[in-house]
Amino acid sequence: MSGLVLELEVVPAFYEVDPLAVVWHGHYVKYFERARTVLMTRLGYGYLEMRDSGYLWPVVDLHIKFVKPAVLQEPLQVRAEIVEYEHRLRVKYAVRRTRTGEVLTRGHTVQVAVDARTGELQYVCPKVLWEKLGVSP
Amino acid sequence: MSGLVLELEVVPAFYEVDPLAVVWHGHYVKYFERARTVLMTRLGYGYLEMRDSGYLWPVVDLHIKFVKPAVLQEPLQVRAEIVEYEHRLRVKYAVRRTRTGEVLTRGHTVQVAVDARTGELQYVCPKVLWEKLGVSP
Amino acid sequence: MSGLVLELEVVPAFYEVDPLAVVWHGHYVKYFERARTVLMTRLGYGYLEMRDSGYLWPVVDLHIKFVKPAVLQEPLQVRAEIVEYEHRLRVKYAVRRTRTGEVLTRGHTVQVAVDARTGELQYVCPKVLWEKLGVSP
Amino acid sequence: MSGLVLELEVVPAFYEVDPLAVVWHGHYVKYFERARTVLMTRLGYGYLEMRDSGYLWPVVDLHIKFVKPAVLQEPLQVRAEIVEYEHRLRVKYAVRRTRTGEVLTRGHTVQVAVDARTGELQYVCPKVLWEKLGVSP
Repeated sequence: MSGLVLELEVVPAFYEVDPLAVVWHGHYVKYFERARTVLMTRLGYGYLEMRDSGYLWPVVDLHIKFVKPAVLQEPLQVRAEIVEYEHRLRVKYAVRRTRTGEVLTRGHTVQVAVDARTGELQYVCPKVLWEKLGVSP
Repeated sequence: MSGLVLELEVVPAFYEVDPLAVVWHGHYVKYFERARTVLMTRLGYGYLEMRDSGYLWPVVDLHIKFVKPAVLQEPLQVRAEIVEYEHRLRVKYAVRRTRTGEVLTRGHTVQVAVDARTGELQYVCPKVLWEKLGVSP
Repeated sequence: MSGLVLELEVVPAFYEVDPLAVVWHGHYVKYFERARTVLMTRLGYGYLEMRDSGYLWPVVDLHIKFVKPAVLQEPLQVRAEIVEYEHRLRVKYAVRRTRTGEVLTRGHTVQVAVDARTGELQYVCPKVLWEKLGVSP
Repeated sequence: MSGLVLELEVVPAFYEVDPLAVVWHGHYVKYFERARTVLMTRLGYGYLEMRDSGYLWPVVDLHIKFVKPAVLQEPLQVRAEIVEYEHRLRVKYAVRRTRTGEVLTRGHTVQVAVDARTGELQYVCPKVLWEKLGVSP
């Protein structure tokens, strides 16, 4: 299963920290996307390969639980793991304080495949996803 | 109940639209926050009044369902409604295409009160919230 | 000349304010773009009309002077004025505190026309711009 | 002089790319800030040290020239170099396509020191800056 996991270090930028001196909650969506992007790109199925495969993969569901705040310039470890790929692509995330390992945030995204030409939703993930992930559902 | 609802028009900006010509999913967190801010400010409990009341209200939970995409410069109606205020502040949201009324996105946020001085989480919402909302839980 | 000017009210959002309690300087680029977008759209030459006219208008130069800081939820007036349209489109901006009229920020952007099909830079602005602006250079 | 220069690799994120498939011009302000932050932090004068030194360093001037567009996921090299430190802190930037070395963007920022307690502008940079930079003006 380890091929379907990625850990990325992210350092919150000054412009991501709010007047209360913590990372504004909406920025975690970006941290999730950065980790997922690196994971998918390593698997050979980044944005460009998605497009070339004839499918779009819109996010249809997003959930985030905020446990503790992150502060300015404190390194964070963002973990993205693919946990479902049969009918939809489900990735779960955990953001930890690198120094202590404490969990700050947990979440998931769900993406579905859409035929880029017809716009039709795919109720089963296209074979190309499984080939890239090296799985057989 | 109508005092606890607000509808705000938002027009997606060029810099919020992604290469697939639709609003990037993470930007809806901002649309939610804008509508909630106007609602809370009208109720007399905006950011400054929150601070003056001695409480912080961090978002601890966020959920968004993306039904249909929004496109460049198409006016959207963002509806925020307070649906829980006893132990935590829960706001639910719907984003509709202004022209047709179709729902594009639904979601909610949950906020809890934290004592600004001690950092202590409040298991019951402080009275000041109820006074501002004009409710008795 | 008054048709080439627009004033837009912008209220800084919570997520645009930095740990020093002022609007982060990079967000003014968005305020400029919002005012310019409304101005160009009113003139009948918004993003969609630009595309349909066969030209792209990339920003090639941006300058901002920051005079005084803006704070959370304080209404700002953003003024965009077209000041050059012969060889390139130059827009100048001023951001004022609505309440007092004080100037907080001044700046300008320069855009050039590029043929969308060939990618060729136009050394003279295409006629469609002048028609939309109602000017003859 | 080499201690006053830093090069940082940045990969444009999906949410930074606009409908024309290039990085939206306003995002370069963030790339500049990220490179400057790493540079200043290495010199021992990051945000936290600035605060502890009793000075704020607001950006008062920003200029960017956009030469060529950057595209999705193409690695960029952002170079920040301190070029003035006597009366104000001036940093110049160049963003290059990592693969080819072509310059995509050039720019600069100017920051001034403000006494955090009195809010007074400093017409000469405070000594702490020179000590951190290892220079004598």
